[in-house]
Amino acid sequence: MKNTDFSLMFNPRGIAIVGANPDLSRPGRQTVLALDRHGFKGGIYPVNPKYTEIDKYKCYPSLSDISDVVDVAVITLPAAIVPKVIEECGRKGIGFAVVVGGGFREVGLEGAEIEREMLEAAKKANVRIIGPNCLGYKNVHDNVFACFGSITRPPDLISGPVSALIQSGGYGNSMVVQCGYAGIGFRYLVASGSESDVKATDILQAFVDDSKTKIILLYLEGINDGREFVSIAKKALAAGKPIVVIKSGNTRQGQRVAASHTAFLTSSYDIYHSAFKQYGVIEVLDIGDAVDMLQTLLNGNLARGRNVAVMSGSGGSLVNFSDAADDYQLNLGPLTNQTRDTLRQYIPSIGSLINPIDLTAGYQKKENSDPYRKCIEAVLADPGIDQLGLFLATAGGENLVRAADAIVGAHNPEKKPIFIFSAFPPELTADGAAIFRMAQIPFLATPRRLAAAMSKLANYSAARFNSNRIVKDCLISNTNLIEIPNISITLDEYTSKKILKNFDIPVSNDFLFVDLADSITLPISMKYPVALKVVSNEIHHKSDVGGVKLGLLDDLSLKKAANEIFENIKNKFPEVKISGLLVSEMINDGLETIIGVVNDKVFGPVVTFGLGGIFTEIMRDTTYRLAPFDIATAYEMIGELRGSALFSGVRGSPPLDIDSLANALVNVSEFAWQARDRITEMDLNPVLVRPKGYGVVVVDALIITKNLVQSN
Amino acid sequence: MKNTDFSLMFNPRGIAIVGANPDLSRPGRQTVLALDRHGFKGGIYPVNPKYTEIDKYKCYPSLSDISDVVDVAVITLPAAIVPKVIEECGRKGIGFAVVVGGGFREVGLEGAEIEREMLEAAKKANVRIIGPNCLGYKNVHDNVFACFGSITRPPDLISGPVSALIQSGGYGNSMVVQCGYAGIGFRYLVASGSESDVKATDILQAFVDDSKTKIILLYLEGINDGREFVSIAKKALAAGKPIVVIKSGNTRQGQRVAASHTAFLTSSYDIYHSAFKQYGVIEVLDIGDAVDMLQTLLNGNLARGRNVAVMSGSGGSLVNFSDAADDYQLNLGPLTNQTRDTLRQYIPSIGSLINPIDLTAGYQKKENSDPYRKCIEAVLADPGIDQLGLFLATAGGENLVRAADAIVGAHNPEKKPIFIFSAFPPELTADGAAIFRMAQIPFLATPRRLAAAMSKLANYSAARFNSNRIVKDCLISNTNLIEIPNISITLDEYTSKKILKNFDIPVSNDFLFVDLADSITLPISMKYPVALKVVSNEIHHKSDVGGVKLGLLDDLSLKKAANEIFENIKNKFPEVKISGLLVSEMINDGLETIIGVVNDKVFGPVVTFGLGGIFTEIMRDTTYRLAPFDIATAYEMIGELRGSALFSGVRGSPPLDIDSLANALVNVSEFAWQARDRITEMDLNPVLVRPKGYGVVVVDALIITKNLVQSN
Repeated sequence: MKNTDFSLMFNPRGIAIVGANPDLSRPGRQTVLALDRHGFKGGIYPVNPKYTEIDKYKCYPSLSDISDVVDVAVITLPAAIVPKVIEECGRKGIGFAVVVGGGFREVGLEGAEIEREMLEAAKKANVRIIGPNCLGYKNVHDNVFACFGSITRPPDLISGPVSALIQSGGYGNSMVVQCGYAGIGFRYLVASGSESDVKATDILQAFVDDSKTKIILLYLEGINDGREFVSIAKKALAAGKPIVVIKSGNTRQGQRVAASHTAFLTSSYDIYHSAFKQYGVIEVLDIGDAVDMLQTLLNGNLARGRNVAVMSGSGGSLVNFSDAADDYQLNLGPLTNQTRDTLRQYIPSIGSLINPIDLTAGYQKKENSDPYRKCIEAVLADPGIDQLGLFLATAGGENLVRAADAIVGAHNPEKKPIFIFSAFPPELTADGAAIFRMAQIPFLATPRRLAAAMSKLANYSAARFNSNRIVKDCLISNTNLIEIPNISITLDEYTSKKILKNFDIPVSNDFLFVDLADSITLPISMKYPVALKVVSNEIHHKSDVGGVKLGLLDDLSLKKAANEIFENIKNKFPEVKISGLLVSEMINDGLETIIGVVNDKVFGPVVTFGLGGIFTEIMRDTTYRLAPFDIATAYEMIGELRGSALFSGVRGSPPLDIDSLANALVNVSEFAWQARDRITEMDLNPVLVRPKGYGVVVVDALIITKNLVQSN
Repeated sequence: MKNTDFSLMFNPRGIAIVGANPDLSRPGRQTVLALDRHGFKGGIYPVNPKYTEIDKYKCYPSLSDISDVVDVAVITLPAAIVPKVIEECGRKGIGFAVVVGGGFREVGLEGAEIEREMLEAAKKANVRIIGPNCLGYKNVHDNVFACFGSITRPPDLISGPVSALIQSGGYGNSMVVQCGYAGIGFRYLVASGSESDVKATDILQAFVDDSKTKIILLYLEGINDGREFVSIAKKALAAGKPIVVIKSGNTRQGQRVAASHTAFLTSSYDIYHSAFKQYGVIEVLDIGDAVDMLQTLLNGNLARGRNVAVMSGSGGSLVNFSDAADDYQLNLGPLTNQTRDTLRQYIPSIGSLINPIDLTAGYQKKENSDPYRKCIEAVLADPGIDQLGLFLATAGGENLVRAADAIVGAHNPEKKPIFIFSAFPPELTADGAAIFRMAQIPFLATPRRLAAAMSKLANYSAARFNSNRIVKDCLISNTNLIEIPNISITLDEYTSKKILKNFDIPVSNDFLFVDLADSITLPISMKYPVALKVVSNEIHHKSDVGGVKLGLLDDLSLKKAANEIFENIKNKFPEVKISGLLVSEMINDGLETIIGVVNDKVFGPVVTFGLGGIFTEIMRDTTYRLAPFDIATAYEMIGELRGSALFSGVRGSPPLDIDSLANALVNVSEFAWQARDRITEMDLNPVLVRPKGYGVVVVDALIITKNLVQSN
């Protein structure tokens, strides 16, 4: 069992720097200097037989020569020596090592062997390793610097509630530095490098467990175990610790080549993106958005919804915000009469009492300070308003301080989120900005950025309010997987549908003829028109080989179709084994959709849902969720398609049976989860969604199984 | 004829401030102080009978008491007095007035009457008016401040090549201040207010004419005359003066209610957005993007294309950039062998010689300065690379200065655009940033912002390279408009198609029966299947009233259909006048599209093109261009639909006839332009695009005409 308690790593009694060196361009010296400069309270132990002292600290020939307790070794030596040093760490009782250098699996076979040895040594010696190939980590609160390079250098971070995990040291630090510049304080910063031993999820779990970490910031390129990530994300959500993530490495070039439509439609990034959305992880695209979001989350206030109000002295900024509100699905909600009556007392007649609220230009004057506060209080008290934006634009100096005092002083019993827009650079807003910072009120550079932050806060708040539902796993009742073969194979339509039926996924009314063609007649349970399709697990695209006949209206054409299909296959693919012919009752009143499953190597089973037909591939109107999920999530999926209006009925067509569709999605998700060790991909295509009351029908299905292996 | 030479406005010999007042909260005093503080070289003349001196300047009882030459009057008096003051301006030979106050049409009828009087006085007196309801304008180069409020206050702008027009003084100034903070210098700044007399387009024209204005920045909420705007945008494009615009006031709420699908699909913002794209105006969404874009444009370098290279010492930033490059349609182009050979000499083996280029961490060291420059030169010389991004991330101090010297010193004979990413705040980058600023190399805060700027520069550059084509109007040969009635009416399908045919827009093979139903037979030029449709200009949605029968296969069903249609109409709408029944040959091999025209009140005729069927309204996969346009533009429209792949043939279907489609689009655009005084809206829906070689067919059409008025 690996040690998963990282408290001694983040708060070590002593740190050894193995390979310390007087050369400032070398990592070891940088670590010693950073610890020294910041006044680390524990022991600092350079280790290098060549020197007796480095930066006034005694330098030891080896780890075993240190008599004091050491909890962390920062190893700055070449790869080949590292396994031995890890062994030494074990002997000295050092629980954590930071391996900064490269030369492991990334350089080829030889490096991979060294890495294997290092991990084996670590396992034996009960040492956890950060890295290799990493900048290391720091604990800002306690001046712990087990790191080198840019994260040891100014600008120094101030202490605060944000812990960050960065999968690129250099670039991740760019992000952290910009957050710091906006006044955000940090707790832990870990640059995890190659994650040979300690993974991103281990660190993330440690952040969730740490009582002084209130917000988590991630720069992610990829994770090892998506389900582990999701499980920690759920804990973070339940604990009220928001996770803000920039996910990189999403380029769609070189996407997987796959047999099913679903796999073709599902990129790795789609899955990350859905996982984030599904479990309340706040994804941002760029560093500026991360900075804004952290500011927004600092005070812990949640937003009841997407109804926002904004107040400004300049009409232009309100117009600009209204556009952004549209883009970010925020509503400039109506104000109550009571709110308007209050505003009317204070706002000049040329202003606007309707949201967005135009205070007109003079509101920053000294004599308007109290009226301004009263207007803010009135809007904060309005039951229809969930969040408030206050635009200070080019107010600076005294004006800004006065406005800040009014805003911070406003009565806000429900802790509705408040946001400030200020266009001025830091040197013109220092005093006012300090007041907002103290009050943990976000201070953002444009109205549009304000709208973006409000929208993301509303999303996160909704996830928080629903966390009971999100955190609870769905119930799996049906476990009938016996029909699934134990080998990797593409199941034919008939078999695939039989399996689906066991999971209450409605399939078309089919009948399989395994006899000769001329014996085929309409099964008694069916009515014309019917379709006739070849059944063979060696044929994946039946239409392409002349294996499908649609719209058959009578016995004669049914028999004729059967003969034609046999002829087509016999002529074109004489070697192919045919299991039979499937007669299916045709449905003409359904909207074509596609439901699919990809068993992702990181996240496991993921359900895809989208519009069908040629639009599946061309328009890519699809949505994704990790399986399993509940019915509310299924309705969300249906609602978030670009073409979701099609389900409500368009141009006089009736509303469709979205209840049955949602049920089918849930059942597919439960099947996908249950069968996660048994299936690789799955296409239900088309799935016809019929008018309300008539259900959904899986018309064709394709399941690709995998070799059954011991799941561990 | 109004005076359109604004040179004396921007460079006045004297400025009178009418209504000047010692109270600092009043506009007049602010203007005097601003002129004084900045050392305006011309005369400063406060006018107010109550005072003899304001801020050491002699105060005059009236304009006529000033003996020196005055070119501009800043009027800070109540609306009611303004018309009289304008008359006085005329008598004194003052050519320009800035009316800062409100109280005109925005307050109701009385104000509108005052505004009318003011404009009449201005016309008589040959005075041009900026405002009313405005902050006024400044000429940063010559310290002219005919303004008040936030644009007179610090931070002061430095002189430079950017002239800005802002339709919201307060918010526009937020934008300008943030540009100034990034080191961008300004020439003119005009806050144009209500634009009762001088319009945005007048100012824009003046900027284009001004030799010291090199770049134009706009904060727009709306313009009066879209064609005038476009015509100036073309001149700016030809002159190489890029226009960067933030367009606000785009909320889609309260969109027009309209008869045609096209009008329903076309928002006012869609039209602005297309006009910008069509004529090389660079649209940005937020202030930060505007700042980045101005930095990018300062040096005047254009990009030959979208192939970019990036170099960094941190892999993470390269990964992050690659994602952004995907989002912004940039290619990380391959490097030539020669380039790679050069890079190999300087980049350590753990780096990457493949674009994105990973230099590894040590490249900022002193000894690597020369190699770094050589790497940059090699990439700049690579014929496959159009733009270069250099990531300095958290380099500061000496490292940054050294990198800056290497970059600025690199040989760049083709002036390929270079961009810098620096994550550090200004106080840590001052020296290095100054070097880049001097060299006019953009210095941006994140890799994603760099990708956004590169992409917009590529778009603008493409417009510049195509400016001959864009600036030249299309030739209009066919002017046969005689079929269009002179009154506002909805034309029936038959008449609409006849008009279209005159403009070489291919319509379906139709035959109109105006006789009784039982005489209807298949016209000799046609084959079954056919469709039968009622023709009446009183029925716009024929299907909804049972006026359409499709897929008729023989004479019997044709006659039956005719009877049914007559019965349907007679029963449901006995009053409706029927012009006849239209027999149309049916086409079964075409993709449904829609082509439409809206005659916008600001921009005139705009052509909409999109995918047809239910996807038109639900998926809104549509694109827009101002009419008329050329064939290259038509191909662009086809290519930019989300579903454009449908035209190349999917799932084994043949490629479609996009050449004929492009021709049809051009012809519709020429017709729309030619008939701009005669039509209001037009729907060609569906337009079937058939396989290559078989052309396109307009199956149904609806033209709404307008009353013919004298066009002026």
